[in-house]
Amino acid sequence: MRQRLKLTIAYDGAAFAGWQSQKHRNTVQDQLEHAFEKTGAGKVRVHGAGRTDAGVHALAQSAHVDLPDRRLASERWTHALNAVLPRTVRVLRCRYVSQNFHARFSATGKLYRYRIWAAPVLPPLEFGRAWHIFAPIDVDLLKEAAQRFVGKHDFAAFAANRGKKEEDTVRTIRSVLVRKIGPQIAIEIAGDGFLYKMVRLMVGAMVEVARKKSEPKEISSRLKSRRGDGVRFAAPAEGLYLVRIWY
Amino acid sequence: MRQRLKLTIAYDGAAFAGWQSQKHRNTVQDQLEHAFEKTGAGKVRVHGAGRTDAGVHALAQSAHVDLPDRRLASERWTHALNAVLPRTVRVLRCRYVSQNFHARFSATGKLYRYRIWAAPVLPPLEFGRAWHIFAPIDVDLLKEAAQRFVGKHDFAAFAANRGKKEEDTVRTIRSVLVRKIGPQIAIEIAGDGFLYKMVRLMVGAMVEVARKKSEPKEISSRLKSRRGDGVRFAAPAEGLYLVRIWY
Repeated sequence: MRQRLKLTIAYDGAAFAGWQSQKHRNTVQDQLEHAFEKTGAGKVRVHGAGRTDAGVHALAQSAHVDLPDRRLASERWTHALNAVLPRTVRVLRCRYVSQNFHARFSATGKLYRYRIWAAPVLPPLEFGRAWHIFAPIDVDLLKEAAQRFVGKHDFAAFAANRGKKEEDTVRTIRSVLVRKIGPQIAIEIAGDGFLYKMVRLMVGAMVEVARKKSEPKEISSRLKSRRGDGVRFAAPAEGLYLVRIWY
Repeated sequence: MRQRLKLTIAYDGAAFAGWQSQKHRNTVQDQLEHAFEKTGAGKVRVHGAGRTDAGVHALAQSAHVDLPDRRLASERWTHALNAVLPRTVRVLRCRYVSQNFHARFSATGKLYRYRIWAAPVLPPLEFGRAWHIFAPIDVDLLKEAAQRFVGKHDFAAFAANRGKKEEDTVRTIRSVLVRKIGPQIAIEIAGDGFLYKMVRLMVGAMVEVARKKSEPKEISSRLKSRRGDGVRFAAPAEGLYLVRIWY
């Protein structure tokens, strides 16, 4: 009988061409599938909770995989996979779950963090790990803009078009927290689900408000418009972190 | 008249073969000297406050350079140099100083930080930025070991031999602070000066105590021995950060 294993995974987005498997590209999904193969589990498909783009980091992505048997105890899988994975992706823990569990469809919510470094010079150790903004940022306006997203909205205007016109674009944002510590600004966004590029488009719109290029009320107007065809600005991938998947 | 410029520099140690200029090697000193050349300042020598080994990071290294004139205001140098430097090294600030100032000889003290990640799995974003230890660490013993170093001692037993037998090996350690936040342990060491590999040999000895492979009193005995010929263990370079130079 097949056994379903749940994986919790962290990765450095700078090292990969995103999550999703691609021919001749180094992706996180490919690395994990190769790792299972190297450990002798054969060819398996790793199902992620969601795709992350190239450059986007994960502190705790979730995934599941169906294995032919329980040959290894779950904690042994953690060791076995990390022994063959590159250091830029790590399995944090593994656990056997029922066949009812699905990494993507069982998820009840996700938490993302977006990091901005607001200072004239980006420290070398922050390179690839934060969005460097040297123009003045009004943190009060950033917080005001953030609150406009909270609640249930049609996020069509905050999603990259992937040609799927029929997709339901209504999502609920539970909270958007903005913290500033020195030059570092962290924006934590919790929601029941996110559309493609939604977090980066949200942060892009918030920063335009914080830089006084638009007003907070324009975020509300865009949400009401439900139109994805306007000029939008997505914050760069390197500042984005997938922090947690809730089940 | 020549003008002396003081530089404050940060770098990602993983990107360089250390500070000191080497033929056909990518070092921080070489990068800075090339950057001055590219900005039209001609061939100059960059004098660092101290050398850091390959893999060692700097949050604020200091250096000085003699320029033919004050063609550029000091804050313009920051921009001009960063425009041509790789992103893994950044000039944080520049300022003109008197000819009496010397980055190395005027320094009155230095602050180093050593980072340990004590957990079964090293998160990918900590790779190259902390010493990963999965064996149990006794933080109370680590703190006890740390205090043995405080004060004025002959650190001959905590220096890598560079063939300079005549060197004065007496140094004063002002403080050693150990903090633990979750799996992260930070050791901050302030002193009037440090011998070659001294911080890493100190941390190596502290960790051997914290792992119960030796006792705190053995650190005192080693200090008293003044002998550099015993078996010593240096903590790896990637956990070490040069935090500050005092003048």
